[in-house]
Amino acid sequence: MDFSLTEDQQLMVDGFTELMNSEAWEKYFHECDENSEYPERWVKAICDLGFDRILLPEEYDGLGLGWQTLAAAYEALGRAGGPTHVLYQLPGWDTVIREGTEEQKKDILKFVGSGKQMLNYAMTEPSAGSSWDDMSTTYSRKGGKVYLNGHKTFITSSMKVPYLVVMARDADNMGTYTEWFVDMSLPGITKEPLHKLGLRMDSCADIYFDNVELREEDLFGTEGNGFKRGVKDFDLERFEVAMTNYGTAYCAFEDAAKYANQRVQGGEAIARKQLIQLKFADMKVDITNMRNMLYEIAWKADNDQLGRGDCSMAKYYCSHAAARVVDNALQTLAGVGVTGEHRVQRFYRDLRVDRVSGGTDEMMILAAGRGALRDYRS
Amino acid sequence: MDFSLTEDQQLMVDGFTELMNSEAWEKYFHECDENSEYPERWVKAICDLGFDRILLPEEYDGLGLGWQTLAAAYEALGRAGGPTHVLYQLPGWDTVIREGTEEQKKDILKFVGSGKQMLNYAMTEPSAGSSWDDMSTTYSRKGGKVYLNGHKTFITSSMKVPYLVVMARDADNMGTYTEWFVDMSLPGITKEPLHKLGLRMDSCADIYFDNVELREEDLFGTEGNGFKRGVKDFDLERFEVAMTNYGTAYCAFEDAAKYANQRVQGGEAIARKQLIQLKFADMKVDITNMRNMLYEIAWKADNDQLGRGDCSMAKYYCSHAAARVVDNALQTLAGVGVTGEHRVQRFYRDLRVDRVSGGTDEMMILAAGRGALRDYRS
Amino acid sequence: MDFSLTEDQQLMVDGFTELMNSEAWEKYFHECDENSEYPERWVKAICDLGFDRILLPEEYDGLGLGWQTLAAAYEALGRAGGPTHVLYQLPGWDTVIREGTEEQKKDILKFVGSGKQMLNYAMTEPSAGSSWDDMSTTYSRKGGKVYLNGHKTFITSSMKVPYLVVMARDADNMGTYTEWFVDMSLPGITKEPLHKLGLRMDSCADIYFDNVELREEDLFGTEGNGFKRGVKDFDLERFEVAMTNYGTAYCAFEDAAKYANQRVQGGEAIARKQLIQLKFADMKVDITNMRNMLYEIAWKADNDQLGRGDCSMAKYYCSHAAARVVDNALQTLAGVGVTGEHRVQRFYRDLRVDRVSGGTDEMMILAAGRGALRDYRS
Amino acid sequence: MDFSLTEDQQLMVDGFTELMNSEAWEKYFHECDENSEYPERWVKAICDLGFDRILLPEEYDGLGLGWQTLAAAYEALGRAGGPTHVLYQLPGWDTVIREGTEEQKKDILKFVGSGKQMLNYAMTEPSAGSSWDDMSTTYSRKGGKVYLNGHKTFITSSMKVPYLVVMARDADNMGTYTEWFVDMSLPGITKEPLHKLGLRMDSCADIYFDNVELREEDLFGTEGNGFKRGVKDFDLERFEVAMTNYGTAYCAFEDAAKYANQRVQGGEAIARKQLIQLKFADMKVDITNMRNMLYEIAWKADNDQLGRGDCSMAKYYCSHAAARVVDNALQTLAGVGVTGEHRVQRFYRDLRVDRVSGGTDEMMILAAGRGALRDYRS
Repeated sequence: MDFSLTEDQQLMVDGFTELMNSEAWEKYFHECDENSEYPERWVKAICDLGFDRILLPEEYDGLGLGWQTLAAAYEALGRAGGPTHVLYQLPGWDTVIREGTEEQKKDILKFVGSGKQMLNYAMTEPSAGSSWDDMSTTYSRKGGKVYLNGHKTFITSSMKVPYLVVMARDADNMGTYTEWFVDMSLPGITKEPLHKLGLRMDSCADIYFDNVELREEDLFGTEGNGFKRGVKDFDLERFEVAMTNYGTAYCAFEDAAKYANQRVQGGEAIARKQLIQLKFADMKVDITNMRNMLYEIAWKADNDQLGRGDCSMAKYYCSHAAARVVDNALQTLAGVGVTGEHRVQRFYRDLRVDRVSGGTDEMMILAAGRGALRDYRS
Repeated sequence: MDFSLTEDQQLMVDGFTELMNSEAWEKYFHECDENSEYPERWVKAICDLGFDRILLPEEYDGLGLGWQTLAAAYEALGRAGGPTHVLYQLPGWDTVIREGTEEQKKDILKFVGSGKQMLNYAMTEPSAGSSWDDMSTTYSRKGGKVYLNGHKTFITSSMKVPYLVVMARDADNMGTYTEWFVDMSLPGITKEPLHKLGLRMDSCADIYFDNVELREEDLFGTEGNGFKRGVKDFDLERFEVAMTNYGTAYCAFEDAAKYANQRVQGGEAIARKQLIQLKFADMKVDITNMRNMLYEIAWKADNDQLGRGDCSMAKYYCSHAAARVVDNALQTLAGVGVTGEHRVQRFYRDLRVDRVSGGTDEMMILAAGRGALRDYRS
Repeated sequence: MDFSLTEDQQLMVDGFTELMNSEAWEKYFHECDENSEYPERWVKAICDLGFDRILLPEEYDGLGLGWQTLAAAYEALGRAGGPTHVLYQLPGWDTVIREGTEEQKKDILKFVGSGKQMLNYAMTEPSAGSSWDDMSTTYSRKGGKVYLNGHKTFITSSMKVPYLVVMARDADNMGTYTEWFVDMSLPGITKEPLHKLGLRMDSCADIYFDNVELREEDLFGTEGNGFKRGVKDFDLERFEVAMTNYGTAYCAFEDAAKYANQRVQGGEAIARKQLIQLKFADMKVDITNMRNMLYEIAWKADNDQLGRGDCSMAKYYCSHAAARVVDNALQTLAGVGVTGEHRVQRFYRDLRVDRVSGGTDEMMILAAGRGALRDYRS
Repeated sequence: MDFSLTEDQQLMVDGFTELMNSEAWEKYFHECDENSEYPERWVKAICDLGFDRILLPEEYDGLGLGWQTLAAAYEALGRAGGPTHVLYQLPGWDTVIREGTEEQKKDILKFVGSGKQMLNYAMTEPSAGSSWDDMSTTYSRKGGKVYLNGHKTFITSSMKVPYLVVMARDADNMGTYTEWFVDMSLPGITKEPLHKLGLRMDSCADIYFDNVELREEDLFGTEGNGFKRGVKDFDLERFEVAMTNYGTAYCAFEDAAKYANQRVQGGEAIARKQLIQLKFADMKVDITNMRNMLYEIAWKADNDQLGRGDCSMAKYYCSHAAARVVDNALQTLAGVGVTGEHRVQRFYRDLRVDRVSGGTDEMMILAAGRGALRDYRS
């Protein structure tokens, strides 16, 4: 085994770290969070360093690298306080390349390097969380056109993306689930932004489709294949959420460690108190475990060994472990942490949302548990 | 043993419950929280029902009741979603009555029934959290007057209260800690509000005293007695925080229970899923334990049996238990909980602050642990 | 509310405490545990003080008292290190009195005051844990007699009890579950003792019934009523297990507290270390919560207010809380705890078994969770 | 990064796995545990496969391999149910080679390949746990000889080892701590075996030294260096305990997974219940984290990057994580786990002792916490 980054990975990490140190980004992040604004200037800057090209195949002018390098990039950015939760669209080109028509690919790939939001996928509905049977968005064909009707909710980024891939059922055959590549500027689409406890630098909205007229060419992937496609691509998304959680926790841990060494009470640094040392023992355990778990999963993905429950396990574990770390960090920072504008407050709110969005804890637990048990069926 | 409320207590509870049901208060609470405003209209309404008279002695026109009745009141208000964290000043008349001069008593007791903020105590300083040796606010006498200099931080309610009891050291004899009853409209006082993760319906501020001129009559209690006085009155405050935590958790629990019974997924209410039932088993345990612990402590206080670590234990346990309950409730509510304007988001932020303010977890742990051990010294 | 014992309850507690202090019982308990022997001498002694008469109605020469008094008795005995897990049969007369024939009542009630084991109920089978459908023990009638066939497992006390109430299905009508009052000296019964991780002072065995001939008079309760009867009486049993857990934890807590105050390391008692104080804060919380929860449930039972999930919740919470307390006590005692013959080792083993026997954690969680949710169905 | 074993490591693992599968070792282990006997036949068998030569330098006829290979060996043996806790002496030759005289080296190295117990180190005393100041074992010189007096306690393996390195203070200069290489057959040595909750295949004893006459040549290492030497070698020991914990947990996890897939209740395998899946999600997380943490630390040790708190963190985390896994496994196995002779019962007892022996949780927490904080001192 070898637990070190390659030289190339280390170079990329150094580049991101340098960028993060090049200005007081936290001020910008804080403003974006306060105003629920996408931090486009920052995303553009990291795209300039190649973030969005990491997983992009070389034939599309990408770097064609793997999850391990992506992990190293996420780690470097998160550790330095970057709001990595907004980045989830940038490594996921594979879906569009694999499933999209030439026109759809062109629509999306033109965003490479831009730092702009481009695309998300819409499945969840008010009365259909993790259950497909309850979905009520439909499409129906009439006069060579396709008409989309329904209501999607909790759709991340949906206030801003120009395109949304929408899952719908054939109104004439409800067993057929199909995805449509929807231009969000079409008539009949209404967006209602949702306030969120955290993750505020990305939007979240209810989207209403009222007889939205689509072309047959807007079909995404294969008709009736919606359910299958969606499941397949969840792994990368879950991995990314877990990476975000880890990086955020790492940042909080380091903020707290520096503070604990400096903060004097009763004549000695609080770092010398047993109860504080306990917190740091626990934080270090969680940081270590998240890191290793994520790099191991990345290594498995890069070597075609990804297990079915792996990414779910990572999202489950990292969202909880990161929450523990941030809670310990916040408690170490105490008054300084819960008042003023310390970033650990934002982390605290952000992490809580991640245990729901991108697949709830409960979905992760069941997927991870089943994955673990499956290996021992006789 | 008897675990039922008295008839009088039940009547008071019914009154508060009726008030809470009399209008859609949540809208008002949400606005107050958004705007960091004290919910004076609500506080006035509950004072009209006698909340602030519960512990007030009859000779001061109070009800002269005990902690058990106070507990029942807090429970009823919190369970219905009331922001009980703003109420902490209202039961604590005893300090002023016991320590205050006639003038000071008059200044404060005139607020009975008003629903207004009147008084808080200021001890914490930027470089002196739980340690008294690091305090640097001082008073010195010159020409028959007393001059106060220093900087207090994290002082709850301090943007609004007309009076603040300030702990300071005698500049000529730093071993002498004395409290001063300070009129906040005096020249030389600067207030800087602090943003907070939660508990936003009450203010929090840095307060600077620059040669503030006081009279000898502004001495609060006995000179040199500051340290001793402060410790003595912490118990009620800690009890109140714990009651607030409990009530908030109870409200979240009931919101989640109603939702789980109604929310259908895959053809059945989520209340029928084992992972959801586990959450409710755990929530019910915490709710039950908080309630019993708090009423037992109230009973002890009312019967002169309060142990030295009891209220610290309650604050330690209840702040954690309530956090678990709210976390479970939030996870049950899932998307509905983390987006939109569901009150459980506010609870989540509020509870986190309570593990720092009013005495940190760590102070509570040490006080509770020592209390438990003290009983077994041979 | 009132959290004090009545004078009569206190007198009984004092009697038990005096008995426990009257000799070094631990030596006897240790030997019984080593030799897997029932501590009959001790049980006789506490029956002499009336333990088994607490719930027995006055018309049967009992004390006709309630669960609260029983709780106080369990607490006093457990706190002093008594192996209360062997006592579960002694308060449960109600089942026999309610369901039994005159003959069956006489068979059992003659044991009052004797301290001997008399009766248990056998339901569990190797392939039927919590599921009734998988039960395969049957009874069939032939020539005026009833023949019992099957295999029960994990039957507590079954090596010693003279009578066993056995649940079986009518071989001709498998939907009919009926209980039989079986004289364990009958031909055709084989017993195979099971080694256990803990709770070794009571036996546990596999019981095989090979065409055991019973009389019609041996029917227990009402034919076909087995399922219903069993469920109804579980509550008391679960409550008793929870009381045992609590008492055991209390004993470990006090052992650890005395030790921590005396044990000096590096010049000061370990009681002064923050990490030890944390353990005691946590232990005190658990002890306090168990006590209150159990007395509240006892009060509800005595006042006909017992909720459907209450006793399951108590068993769930107390078995875990007691395990935490004993773990903390053991860690405080450290080397002294894990070596030699300190009773805390026995507690550690005993408590682990209790999370399986008398109904698993999982059954308790589901019952408690459903109970909590049921109250909020609209 | 690379998370795969080398070919050579895999070969060694396969050899151990084959050995473990070659007979029903559990029967033997169970007997050894019941009789508190060292499983010498098994240890000999794994030494035949080179276990004790893994870390032994090639110049001493060893394999000269590193911690990663040792980790792979421990994992393979533990996963298959081997009582790896008895193996701790076998990789630790370095101490004797580094510190020992030629005679001492010969005394110890003759045991290579034998599978016998040879040596342990004795520091702990009844009134001196983790504190050196309280140590009272002394040595004094008279007539060219050295006389050892004192009482060591909780000394693992000490009933059987032919040699014991004993830490003592110079009676004439109590600040000088020196170790002595003691032939355990010398007059004046008394051994009193200690019963233990677990880890019963290795002995544990109180050792009394009553004027034991030593030669100057029995000095171990450098006079006055005792304190320093001891600290240095703890890391390997802590790592080994953590490896043992992990392997044991892995075994329990696999036992439980196989059972859960087969055990049918109410018509379906319990593996399909959400509460069981939750247990497996949690177990898988812990197994994954232990494995990665241990291999990463081994990699660091092999590459001279071992951090000061690393091995303490591993012992802290793995002893708790393994306990959680075994608890979950036991709960899955339920009745089958807590009764009969299932090995998971032994694991449950063994693991609990490991949180005390080889350095308590508390020592690990403080070392790990300080290690984490040290990296952030400015």
